[in-house]
Amino acid sequence: MIYENGKVKNLKIAYIGGGSKGWAWKLMSDLASYDDISGDVYLYDIDYRAAQDNEIIGNKFKGIEGAKSEWNYKAVETIGEALDGANFVVVSIMPGTFDEMAFDVHTPEKYGIYQSVGDTVGPGGLIRALRTVPMMEEIALAVKKYSPNAWVINYTNPMTVCVDAMYRAFPEIKAFGCCHEVFGTKEFIIRILEKIKGITGITRDDIKATVTGVNHFTWLTDVKFRDMDIFPIYKEYCENNFTDGLTEPSADQNWFNKMFRTADMVKMDLFKRFGYIAAAGDRHLAEFCDGNWYLKNPETVDSWGFGLTNVDWRKERLAERLERNENLLSGKEEVKIELSGEEGALQIRALLGLCDLVTNVNIPNRGQIPNLPLGAVVETNAAFRTDSVSPLYTGPLPASIYPLVSRISGELTAIVDAAVNRDLDAAFAVFTTDMNVNIPLDDARKLFDEMIEKTAHYLTMYKK
Amino acid sequence: MIYENGKVKNLKIAYIGGGSKGWAWKLMSDLASYDDISGDVYLYDIDYRAAQDNEIIGNKFKGIEGAKSEWNYKAVETIGEALDGANFVVVSIMPGTFDEMAFDVHTPEKYGIYQSVGDTVGPGGLIRALRTVPMMEEIALAVKKYSPNAWVINYTNPMTVCVDAMYRAFPEIKAFGCCHEVFGTKEFIIRILEKIKGITGITRDDIKATVTGVNHFTWLTDVKFRDMDIFPIYKEYCENNFTDGLTEPSADQNWFNKMFRTADMVKMDLFKRFGYIAAAGDRHLAEFCDGNWYLKNPETVDSWGFGLTNVDWRKERLAERLERNENLLSGKEEVKIELSGEEGALQIRALLGLCDLVTNVNIPNRGQIPNLPLGAVVETNAAFRTDSVSPLYTGPLPASIYPLVSRISGELTAIVDAAVNRDLDAAFAVFTTDMNVNIPLDDARKLFDEMIEKTAHYLTMYKK
Amino acid sequence: MIYENGKVKNLKIAYIGGGSKGWAWKLMSDLASYDDISGDVYLYDIDYRAAQDNEIIGNKFKGIEGAKSEWNYKAVETIGEALDGANFVVVSIMPGTFDEMAFDVHTPEKYGIYQSVGDTVGPGGLIRALRTVPMMEEIALAVKKYSPNAWVINYTNPMTVCVDAMYRAFPEIKAFGCCHEVFGTKEFIIRILEKIKGITGITRDDIKATVTGVNHFTWLTDVKFRDMDIFPIYKEYCENNFTDGLTEPSADQNWFNKMFRTADMVKMDLFKRFGYIAAAGDRHLAEFCDGNWYLKNPETVDSWGFGLTNVDWRKERLAERLERNENLLSGKEEVKIELSGEEGALQIRALLGLCDLVTNVNIPNRGQIPNLPLGAVVETNAAFRTDSVSPLYTGPLPASIYPLVSRISGELTAIVDAAVNRDLDAAFAVFTTDMNVNIPLDDARKLFDEMIEKTAHYLTMYKK
Amino acid sequence: MIYENGKVKNLKIAYIGGGSKGWAWKLMSDLASYDDISGDVYLYDIDYRAAQDNEIIGNKFKGIEGAKSEWNYKAVETIGEALDGANFVVVSIMPGTFDEMAFDVHTPEKYGIYQSVGDTVGPGGLIRALRTVPMMEEIALAVKKYSPNAWVINYTNPMTVCVDAMYRAFPEIKAFGCCHEVFGTKEFIIRILEKIKGITGITRDDIKATVTGVNHFTWLTDVKFRDMDIFPIYKEYCENNFTDGLTEPSADQNWFNKMFRTADMVKMDLFKRFGYIAAAGDRHLAEFCDGNWYLKNPETVDSWGFGLTNVDWRKERLAERLERNENLLSGKEEVKIELSGEEGALQIRALLGLCDLVTNVNIPNRGQIPNLPLGAVVETNAAFRTDSVSPLYTGPLPASIYPLVSRISGELTAIVDAAVNRDLDAAFAVFTTDMNVNIPLDDARKLFDEMIEKTAHYLTMYKK
Repeated sequence: MIYENGKVKNLKIAYIGGGSKGWAWKLMSDLASYDDISGDVYLYDIDYRAAQDNEIIGNKFKGIEGAKSEWNYKAVETIGEALDGANFVVVSIMPGTFDEMAFDVHTPEKYGIYQSVGDTVGPGGLIRALRTVPMMEEIALAVKKYSPNAWVINYTNPMTVCVDAMYRAFPEIKAFGCCHEVFGTKEFIIRILEKIKGITGITRDDIKATVTGVNHFTWLTDVKFRDMDIFPIYKEYCENNFTDGLTEPSADQNWFNKMFRTADMVKMDLFKRFGYIAAAGDRHLAEFCDGNWYLKNPETVDSWGFGLTNVDWRKERLAERLERNENLLSGKEEVKIELSGEEGALQIRALLGLCDLVTNVNIPNRGQIPNLPLGAVVETNAAFRTDSVSPLYTGPLPASIYPLVSRISGELTAIVDAAVNRDLDAAFAVFTTDMNVNIPLDDARKLFDEMIEKTAHYLTMYKK
Repeated sequence: MIYENGKVKNLKIAYIGGGSKGWAWKLMSDLASYDDISGDVYLYDIDYRAAQDNEIIGNKFKGIEGAKSEWNYKAVETIGEALDGANFVVVSIMPGTFDEMAFDVHTPEKYGIYQSVGDTVGPGGLIRALRTVPMMEEIALAVKKYSPNAWVINYTNPMTVCVDAMYRAFPEIKAFGCCHEVFGTKEFIIRILEKIKGITGITRDDIKATVTGVNHFTWLTDVKFRDMDIFPIYKEYCENNFTDGLTEPSADQNWFNKMFRTADMVKMDLFKRFGYIAAAGDRHLAEFCDGNWYLKNPETVDSWGFGLTNVDWRKERLAERLERNENLLSGKEEVKIELSGEEGALQIRALLGLCDLVTNVNIPNRGQIPNLPLGAVVETNAAFRTDSVSPLYTGPLPASIYPLVSRISGELTAIVDAAVNRDLDAAFAVFTTDMNVNIPLDDARKLFDEMIEKTAHYLTMYKK
Repeated sequence: MIYENGKVKNLKIAYIGGGSKGWAWKLMSDLASYDDISGDVYLYDIDYRAAQDNEIIGNKFKGIEGAKSEWNYKAVETIGEALDGANFVVVSIMPGTFDEMAFDVHTPEKYGIYQSVGDTVGPGGLIRALRTVPMMEEIALAVKKYSPNAWVINYTNPMTVCVDAMYRAFPEIKAFGCCHEVFGTKEFIIRILEKIKGITGITRDDIKATVTGVNHFTWLTDVKFRDMDIFPIYKEYCENNFTDGLTEPSADQNWFNKMFRTADMVKMDLFKRFGYIAAAGDRHLAEFCDGNWYLKNPETVDSWGFGLTNVDWRKERLAERLERNENLLSGKEEVKIELSGEEGALQIRALLGLCDLVTNVNIPNRGQIPNLPLGAVVETNAAFRTDSVSPLYTGPLPASIYPLVSRISGELTAIVDAAVNRDLDAAFAVFTTDMNVNIPLDDARKLFDEMIEKTAHYLTMYKK
Repeated sequence: MIYENGKVKNLKIAYIGGGSKGWAWKLMSDLASYDDISGDVYLYDIDYRAAQDNEIIGNKFKGIEGAKSEWNYKAVETIGEALDGANFVVVSIMPGTFDEMAFDVHTPEKYGIYQSVGDTVGPGGLIRALRTVPMMEEIALAVKKYSPNAWVINYTNPMTVCVDAMYRAFPEIKAFGCCHEVFGTKEFIIRILEKIKGITGITRDDIKATVTGVNHFTWLTDVKFRDMDIFPIYKEYCENNFTDGLTEPSADQNWFNKMFRTADMVKMDLFKRFGYIAAAGDRHLAEFCDGNWYLKNPETVDSWGFGLTNVDWRKERLAERLERNENLLSGKEEVKIELSGEEGALQIRALLGLCDLVTNVNIPNRGQIPNLPLGAVVETNAAFRTDSVSPLYTGPLPASIYPLVSRISGELTAIVDAAVNRDLDAAFAVFTTDMNVNIPLDDARKLFDEMIEKTAHYLTMYKK
């Protein structure tokens, strides 16, 4: 790369995955929107055709309205070509297909276990972790071989597991994981400030929060807007407007098709009990709690104002994206610059020294949360500066949430242990301790075996 | 106290509690069995009559067969008289009566929550904690006032909570908690060695174990007998003799009256899954696990070969002890020296410099378990030497058991927080996170309120 | 204070000290140069006349060219009036007069101990610490009483000692210490980049460094400019231009009057040996090293291209400032906006949420440097955000500099211990361990006693 | 090995080194004095003849008066034969000859640096470290290859450096270092108790101490005898009998031949200043302090009542041992059981589970001293139990001694770093920071180069 007049040219970014479209297009748009970085993006996906499509679409961004920089996109057939000499690596893979995801999410329903997402924890998240860890190990080892000094930005879930697996495979890797769930909670706070205080025009950056925990079960232990302490305001809102967040359901809505609707009732319920702001969507939060709280059955889910993941729905969305893919390729639809709200491009600029940035990321614990184990992957704020990501000292987890967070942190470490050792018995032990697997042990065994069987194709490297 | 010819005379021991008899008599017998310590034992109980009875019984130990030292027992009416100038303080109180215990244990049954002990965790243990913390604070403050340099040996449950509460009230207190559950597990290992290896005559001291965890959910992560690694032997036993430990149940036994029978199946099941030896009785262990595993209902309990606590049974035992009390007072029964297997007298001797001792105790974490929070009360081995108890560096909890242990450690810290702040709302939040309260949140609220109501008499200092 | 349209009005800043002028005028100028903060500055100094002068001068800044905000200055007679309700407190006191400083610096010369500054470590710094600690305790207790939520910015030396003393007196204090020495080292790096690489126009903010250590003995363990690793460049410079930094001395210069001249040879010598960039002026660095290295005698000092502190020179500068004071009061000289290069006003804005800022500060160690003791005051980068200063995880001190840094960190902790306990014997023990007190023990005793005697007036609260 | 009737037979011990006789004979005598261990001792020394002599002498212990067990000694020509299948490994080598030691000790005298031992720190200790580290690496790698589960007991100096080097070469090694200096300090305390309190018959085991620090600069921070706190007694002694410990020097004694005489004045002086008991011989302690304190010149040394190491004297002692060797071989002198006071045999028994033992050892810091770096080799008490050595939590080093101890701990870590990297420049940087190298930097360079030159034969693996 070349620095010139306050700009960086000839950057090489390797994009691993992206065949499922969404994230790749967002990054294309974001990259084009900054005028101080430019270069090449190498696209690698196990589906080479998908990468080729992205090459074509990516190159269409050159020179369009709002594009402030020029990027060349190039699909390659091997991960080595993508990584070789890369300055940054973006990892956004899908561990398996939507069929696997459907097995992950729906198989447990026969035992009365309902999952609202199924990609992070719970039976679905754990089985997904078993598939994902070997893939992430492979990527990390390729980074070690081809671009050991590159920064690796992971968007793949289960986030904690992915980041952990990469650090185990290549301990010197400069990797971190990004997730937008905290941003969503800041938006919720902004809406509360509008409702209660009548303040408008607040942006996400105006909300300064201490972030702590584990991805998708992240907590805000201190939030400020200007000189306002947000906690009493949030408390007031939770007490008086417990159900106000609830979008009025139309007559025909049932729990199956309101998946992404959310009334933030879970978030508020957790605040009322534990005194801190859980900072992820309700669908994620619910899965980190006792299975009886929010996910006991579809009716319970409904009463808390959110919906269960429906993999059919996801498949429909994918179909839509594929259709849009065709339209973009054919020119029926034109690409345009739309900021994603993600921070990947901003982080890249900060790591290049073009700006300073403090934001939340997922990296191994070095003491930023002193009462979680060293080395466990945690989510806190970190300072991004030239070629460095330094976690901010965050302090111990508050006593009320420590039990819930420490157990899940440990569970995710244990599933990575099991996966790294290719040990399904150890994985079963972890499976039984999950908060949502609150079924008798023999049922848990049957469920686990069935889920493993269904995804066996991806687990050939595991010991029998 | 006076050192003379390798012996210590004129010791003053304060015994707080003991009205329920069992522990006090054991200590009387143990103290008399060593020839190198002697002195006075001051007895204080909120039931002064009970203390007076113990004074009479204690003094009967003088000069009987096997008594190697002479101790004077004296009941006093105030805790100050007992503590003033004491060298050691033994705390063995009952927080409430068996009626409270019956409420603690049986009230949750209407929501399908069955407790095998109910005095440590679970709904019963948590409510008991709320009663106990103010009592332990009071004792700790009295120690601070009357005998700040005394060593305080606690036998009261919930152990972790009691020790924690004392350190919070008087941070310089020299207190530790003792529990015999680990000893019982060593006996189980001795029986296994007899069965599998045919080795006889092994004593508890021959089994050297690394102890780690939280009281009643303590684990052995390394066990040696001579040059034998016990783990493969234990594994073989668990695999081949899973139900062999089970005492053949007689025809008329039902789950109600086989309370203290135990088949060690829980212990073996935990080993098979997590790879480490859980070191407490099955009835305790079951309560630290998901309510569906071992305690789903009386039939499940039965199938795992142990019994539920039956407070009526405990009341019967108390009645027997009271009868025995009368017999001992009247001389119908004679006192005699019977070693208890407890280590209180041994610990006293080690703290006086009369011997060295390494054994397991409950004290605040100073780093002996580096992946649990500093300050949390944990159970590990410690070295007892003159006027010092130093925990042994034990290493991090293994990944497979970290989730289960960290959560319970945090839960117990949080209930002490709630109790210290006299905050029942905070207590309810803890209540909902307990592994056995796996019921819907509104049921949890009802249960909590009912349990609080029933023990309200003991909670007058709490905020409404 | 009031937030309005992205600005903060009605701030209250308490300025403690400032009678010696320099720092106060700098802050006046800096405050006026930002358009988004305004309010009142209350001036308190033990010399009320000096505060009154500053009130007059400060108010002259209103509306002058370049002033973007308006501040009202007001001298008060008690610290309480200054602190009451303050949002920020700036502490910049002089512990004693230049007479005391002269004793501190020159008394040791009779034992062959030469000090280049004498206000941080060495015999002078330690005696100064004994005077300063009681003053800082008093200020911290007043903050506790009058403005416990205020942020306290300390500029007083000895920096580490001052910050430590404030935290001991009021552990919840929100205090940090600022020092510009690291900035100076960044300027040195900028000059090197100009010389070696021919790059011009680099600003301090372009240089991103990992900062670690103890104030005035701070080190840069990683420095980046754009994608350049500065270390090989710095190495090349140190090897080839070891004496090039040296200003050509004019014929009549002797070691007495070239005090602030510096050739950066000490800095380069430390780099060549230890492999890291010492980030303070050579005059400071020299005092943290063995007395034989750079300060053996005036000739040695001269050969390393720097000068010894000459208190007479400092007195002359003060006289100049006092003259300027008169001129500013009388209007003979007009006040004008000149940016100081200090970051106080910037930090205030970041703490108000008006910008984010990562910069180096002095605060207690929470683990940012894991191989220094928790609680010791250290200097590292920290993130300033709304109402929070969070240290960045910095990693362990490198092995080569750990011995030098840990000992001085411990020495400064120990002198605060001695001062807090008003214990001159303990202070003498610290005195003997200082790197510059490399004289026989009986001489050290004599020197210590003489220095204490000379400053006895300020030490009346110490035990005899 | 075989356990039978409470005894262990067929142990295999590998003894590495021992050619210089002293330690080997002590261990022979100690092993024979316990009735519950027996087996084979394999002797390996680079001087095979010396090992053969030890074989002959060792075998003479069989069946002599007082011998309670039988051991077979066997000299072998390769380290592999010695280690293969060994249960314990004893390492007691001499890194170089007395000629190298003479260079180490006496070369610095021309720069006015006097060393009282020269084998641990100071210029001599550091150069010795450079020779020793590659040897210890070799031994550790051989242990890894031939007997990875063996316990390794090191007696070689520099102790800290040797243990550190072994752990770096083979991190899983079960090694610890033993030193008798703390025992000597306990004897000093016993003599004080006799003098001041008139108590006789106290044994070393009666003195219970908290041990902390770095080998040869170890401190006792708490000492108890029965219920007595030793500190006020020690203080009284130091104040009233400061020179009483001094053996009356006979007329012809000069500083050259009173080498091992010691008046304990250094120890008492350190106590008076720092408040804790330094627990090593004065000759060792002096070297960890500023060169001006006790070692400024021979007269200063004399005034503190100890003597400088004289390598000629050591050579004479070796000649005596060699003569004794001949006499033992020829039968002119008979071997006999004389307990050494060392604890090697006792530690072996504890590691076999035959007894419990708490004693001081040198092992990597796991948190036993929380304010020293993790991993640094420190000396504290540890509990020896079957197949385990667990350090006792010792607490942070007190503030007054932290600066002195942390710097030396860091210095020793840094010299191992330099040696492991075969980097003489890095070694020189460490050399300059040593407390005794208080000479100008250019002199330090000359001295270092000369010392390296003299021992170059042993440093062929270092980079030029």
